[in-house]
Amino acid sequence: MIAVLKPNASPERVEHLIHWLKEQGLGVHVSQGEFQTVLGLIGNTAKVDMEMIQSLDIVESVTRVSDPFKAVNRQFHPDSSEIQAGSAAIGRGHFALIAGPCSVETEEQIIYVAQQVKAAGAHFLRGGAFKPRTSPYDFQGLGAEGIRLLLEAKKATGLPIVTELMDIRNLDLFEEVDVIQVGARNTQNFDMLKELGKTKKPILLKRGLAGTIKELLMSAEYIMANGNEDVILCERGIRTYESTYTRNTLDLSAIPVLKKLTHLPVVVDPSHATGHADLVEPMAMAAVAAGADGLMIEVHNDPPHALCDGAQSLTPEAFAATAKKLFRIREAMEP
Amino acid sequence: MIAVLKPNASPERVEHLIHWLKEQGLGVHVSQGEFQTVLGLIGNTAKVDMEMIQSLDIVESVTRVSDPFKAVNRQFHPDSSEIQAGSAAIGRGHFALIAGPCSVETEEQIIYVAQQVKAAGAHFLRGGAFKPRTSPYDFQGLGAEGIRLLLEAKKATGLPIVTELMDIRNLDLFEEVDVIQVGARNTQNFDMLKELGKTKKPILLKRGLAGTIKELLMSAEYIMANGNEDVILCERGIRTYESTYTRNTLDLSAIPVLKKLTHLPVVVDPSHATGHADLVEPMAMAAVAAGADGLMIEVHNDPPHALCDGAQSLTPEAFAATAKKLFRIREAMEP
Amino acid sequence: MIAVLKPNASPERVEHLIHWLKEQGLGVHVSQGEFQTVLGLIGNTAKVDMEMIQSLDIVESVTRVSDPFKAVNRQFHPDSSEIQAGSAAIGRGHFALIAGPCSVETEEQIIYVAQQVKAAGAHFLRGGAFKPRTSPYDFQGLGAEGIRLLLEAKKATGLPIVTELMDIRNLDLFEEVDVIQVGARNTQNFDMLKELGKTKKPILLKRGLAGTIKELLMSAEYIMANGNEDVILCERGIRTYESTYTRNTLDLSAIPVLKKLTHLPVVVDPSHATGHADLVEPMAMAAVAAGADGLMIEVHNDPPHALCDGAQSLTPEAFAATAKKLFRIREAMEP
Amino acid sequence: MIAVLKPNASPERVEHLIHWLKEQGLGVHVSQGEFQTVLGLIGNTAKVDMEMIQSLDIVESVTRVSDPFKAVNRQFHPDSSEIQAGSAAIGRGHFALIAGPCSVETEEQIIYVAQQVKAAGAHFLRGGAFKPRTSPYDFQGLGAEGIRLLLEAKKATGLPIVTELMDIRNLDLFEEVDVIQVGARNTQNFDMLKELGKTKKPILLKRGLAGTIKELLMSAEYIMANGNEDVILCERGIRTYESTYTRNTLDLSAIPVLKKLTHLPVVVDPSHATGHADLVEPMAMAAVAAGADGLMIEVHNDPPHALCDGAQSLTPEAFAATAKKLFRIREAMEP
Repeated sequence: MIAVLKPNASPERVEHLIHWLKEQGLGVHVSQGEFQTVLGLIGNTAKVDMEMIQSLDIVESVTRVSDPFKAVNRQFHPDSSEIQAGSAAIGRGHFALIAGPCSVETEEQIIYVAQQVKAAGAHFLRGGAFKPRTSPYDFQGLGAEGIRLLLEAKKATGLPIVTELMDIRNLDLFEEVDVIQVGARNTQNFDMLKELGKTKKPILLKRGLAGTIKELLMSAEYIMANGNEDVILCERGIRTYESTYTRNTLDLSAIPVLKKLTHLPVVVDPSHATGHADLVEPMAMAAVAAGADGLMIEVHNDPPHALCDGAQSLTPEAFAATAKKLFRIREAMEP
Repeated sequence: MIAVLKPNASPERVEHLIHWLKEQGLGVHVSQGEFQTVLGLIGNTAKVDMEMIQSLDIVESVTRVSDPFKAVNRQFHPDSSEIQAGSAAIGRGHFALIAGPCSVETEEQIIYVAQQVKAAGAHFLRGGAFKPRTSPYDFQGLGAEGIRLLLEAKKATGLPIVTELMDIRNLDLFEEVDVIQVGARNTQNFDMLKELGKTKKPILLKRGLAGTIKELLMSAEYIMANGNEDVILCERGIRTYESTYTRNTLDLSAIPVLKKLTHLPVVVDPSHATGHADLVEPMAMAAVAAGADGLMIEVHNDPPHALCDGAQSLTPEAFAATAKKLFRIREAMEP
Repeated sequence: MIAVLKPNASPERVEHLIHWLKEQGLGVHVSQGEFQTVLGLIGNTAKVDMEMIQSLDIVESVTRVSDPFKAVNRQFHPDSSEIQAGSAAIGRGHFALIAGPCSVETEEQIIYVAQQVKAAGAHFLRGGAFKPRTSPYDFQGLGAEGIRLLLEAKKATGLPIVTELMDIRNLDLFEEVDVIQVGARNTQNFDMLKELGKTKKPILLKRGLAGTIKELLMSAEYIMANGNEDVILCERGIRTYESTYTRNTLDLSAIPVLKKLTHLPVVVDPSHATGHADLVEPMAMAAVAAGADGLMIEVHNDPPHALCDGAQSLTPEAFAATAKKLFRIREAMEP
Repeated sequence: MIAVLKPNASPERVEHLIHWLKEQGLGVHVSQGEFQTVLGLIGNTAKVDMEMIQSLDIVESVTRVSDPFKAVNRQFHPDSSEIQAGSAAIGRGHFALIAGPCSVETEEQIIYVAQQVKAAGAHFLRGGAFKPRTSPYDFQGLGAEGIRLLLEAKKATGLPIVTELMDIRNLDLFEEVDVIQVGARNTQNFDMLKELGKTKKPILLKRGLAGTIKELLMSAEYIMANGNEDVILCERGIRTYESTYTRNTLDLSAIPVLKKLTHLPVVVDPSHATGHADLVEPMAMAAVAAGADGLMIEVHNDPPHALCDGAQSLTPEAFAATAKKLFRIREAMEP
């Protein structure tokens, strides 16, 4: 960390600050310039509150040279992580196609969709039991019953399941779930993250509604710092001024950026990002070409009557056609 | 709600849709144009999933004519609400000055600050016991002990207290708290909102990090729909591309917009919005001039050593000077 | 266009509005509901000022059913356009690789880079003669001399050239330029667009710094409405809150959205969007997989010493390797 | 400027960089840490291309300690500037109320509005002759005739006039105009700024559609660096994700931020920012309370029939009532 002091900082104040920094366990390297003093701070600066130092009236600016995240950092863990979940793996060359309906509706529906997406090549079944809805008057999901139906579909097809946890008090219900999803509205629900850090389940962590890449990594760090190393990051579109033709703006550059910064696998959800079924295929293909480790795609047997997010779901037939193209892009990328 | 159908929609499909809409309990008024059919939907359209209808392939566009929020809507509740909390009130002419440190640190600190802000005219004491921090390595607040210290300060000064709840499992600890704050990262923590809707406490609901005005109102609706009518809305800056000179962009136009849409009181937090102590006063003054029902200002006895957010805190002296100016603006606005 | 009137609109006022609308040459279809009147407007509503109608106190909301753009609209021109420029074509199956340095620096440099990118498969040479720079103290480009050097490179390699016009008063200098680029800061320089509409040159129109897709199409409409049909649209990243790891956020969903809305070709500039050389390849590949008609990539013989934008340029060797991969993705997409 | 080098940078490369920096006329202060070398660069770093240095593979990060703007910088010009235009002044205690219609329509209209706003206390008349419109099919302004009508209104009332220049080729028409406005779409039309820098007219420079504060200052720097010191900055709302209830988000924190960074006067345009007449008054009052040096307010004799932007215009009566309240806020702010 580099702190640039103000030109008029009194020597006593500077001495006092250096003393305090050393007390925090940091090494301090002082560089006395003609006009300004620059402090180079060495040690575990991740634990230092940058804003507090910035707030001192003798400090002009503070720059963090090293990243504030440690456990997720590729620098300290150069090999890509591979995460095992049920019969499937993701990361380090394992590409994961996660598919299924936005909401679980009936046993017939979820088993039918599971069979269809499996046949098309999917590795995971997704489905919502607890649904975050902007309005209290919208369908909120089947809850515990939804989880039960997902487990039936798992039994019928062998596909590991991914489903969202909205309230940490429901964690018990997720015992047989393979991957617990943290939704975009809970990416910074820090108490939930800490609790999930104490479980042994892989966590699929979505980027916040308008979350930065750094915040996503820091939220993953919350889980890892509490003991759970199996975190899958998910880009799902960010909120921007452009919302006429797409619900969110899918930030595909997040893929190579994240792959550089962290060893964790990165998947992309083109369905929620775009909000339109006809944009799902081109964005899914683009995500694969950009290097994503997996995709999460909404598939519904009867999109126009889906209880939520019908506008963005593919039919099983459309999904099968898309999957074929995705696998061809994957092949074209092999060296 | 107005649904415009596509020019080529077959009469059978249109008939089928009208039938289905009527089944949902809606009145349907059909207007047959030269090229296109327009459906006017009458009844409780707040309970209709707009996206589902939009997704139908015979539908070109759907426009909601009436707002999706009911309980918070000024249309059905023309008088401004007044919310009572301990010895203070907010809304319908009652202006509330809420002040105190970002984090509770020690008993001396919190009692001292409480006395100082009370002397300067503050009506509420704020202070964080549970702190949402981006990094797991940053100070997370004193927790239950922080609540205890706040209650000591309340005893010492009589000021009602406002403090943030981060984990619904801690609700018991808030029994003597006067106003429960929902932070910007929990604005769409819907399970928490439902639970708070079952309490009798006033809730200070912050706008999400990048939350829309409509989302803020829908989140308030979650609380009200569950039985709690005492919701205070708080504008605290939104995430924009401009983050060099201010942490967030304080959206003061949200004040008159919200006052028009809802009967609930609206307060502004200029401290978190700007992140800089020297911007707090001008933004606080602007908020008052724009019609805010209250302000939430960070005050710390020793800002440069505050354990968090020091850069944005005022000293008690600076706060007293600012408060004087704020009251003068309030006076200048009286008819 | 659908105008929903307020419940309490007086019959006289409504009559007056309908009369006025008919005077504007519109057909008006009145639908009298139980509570509200809905007007369906038929005719050339692109010429009607939606905001003016919205501002009337008897109007609740106005929704445009048809798009405000005509000439660029795929609805009226279902076949994709193919644009010819020098020896190359773009659109309707013709993929265009545009490459070259950010700024033209010397004759040796530009000819060397031109030869290299041609050998790697590029179809166009790009290079900046006039450079838009945020600071008046930064290098502003070689100007007319830069254009001269580009024409030398064209002579040496046969590659058609693409270069940016910043000041309409310099149009004469562009006589032998093959494609005139309009930069992101001039996307809404309407007088320039009108003037370019009177030329016969293909125009490469970049999306504004924070421009919407609709604004981009309306700007293309300015050019086409003035007589020039050869417009190439260019996605180059949009301004969002995320600017730590990428300069802008490349909005690849703009590709399929634009391909649906317009018949004009769409190219992508991954260099300016990301601002980092190591993100160019993955984003270029993603753009191809998403269906882009072309790419615009910065290539510099000596990136670390480039006079501008060095951080985002590829070396000729890196470009050649990337081009190979791009062509493989193109192949994998063929049916 | 502080450059932090990578831990593994070879001594030869470091030596080479230092040599090159010195050639650029900079002083270089080297600080050799245990792991990393830090270079402190002294001298006219405003002329150094930060991105170029950042792009070097031995450089980890570059931080600008001093601002890249000089002429506009309050650091080198501590007193606030006062700008004289016709009979009025703005800045250094002079508050300027600028009012008038979006577009000049007829001689009667503009003279009537001029008289009304003058009576209400306005110091400047604004009116658009050249109008930037998103659509080529919308009303584009009266052009030269509009300027002529504005000058008639000036003759009739004595009010100095402010009007927008869209095409530098029309500069001759602005000879008797008092203040030339640069619109939000031309804030980074650098060739226009250079040309305006050579005039003697005060320039009212609007912040870009999605412009940063730094970009606004750099654009002012373009004008000042070319010889014209009379620049008035104008905050007019920025583009954000929130566009349901307001057209743009008025960034009032830009006022105190700009007042701290620059000596130039700062005015606010609440009409374009909000796009709704009923939000103009509260936002105007807030702007005054935040310390604005002036306001630019749209006033139209017949808002619902205005040829553009009617939705955001006040009637002369409403303006007079608002002006009274604004002057009261101004008074309440006096020490």
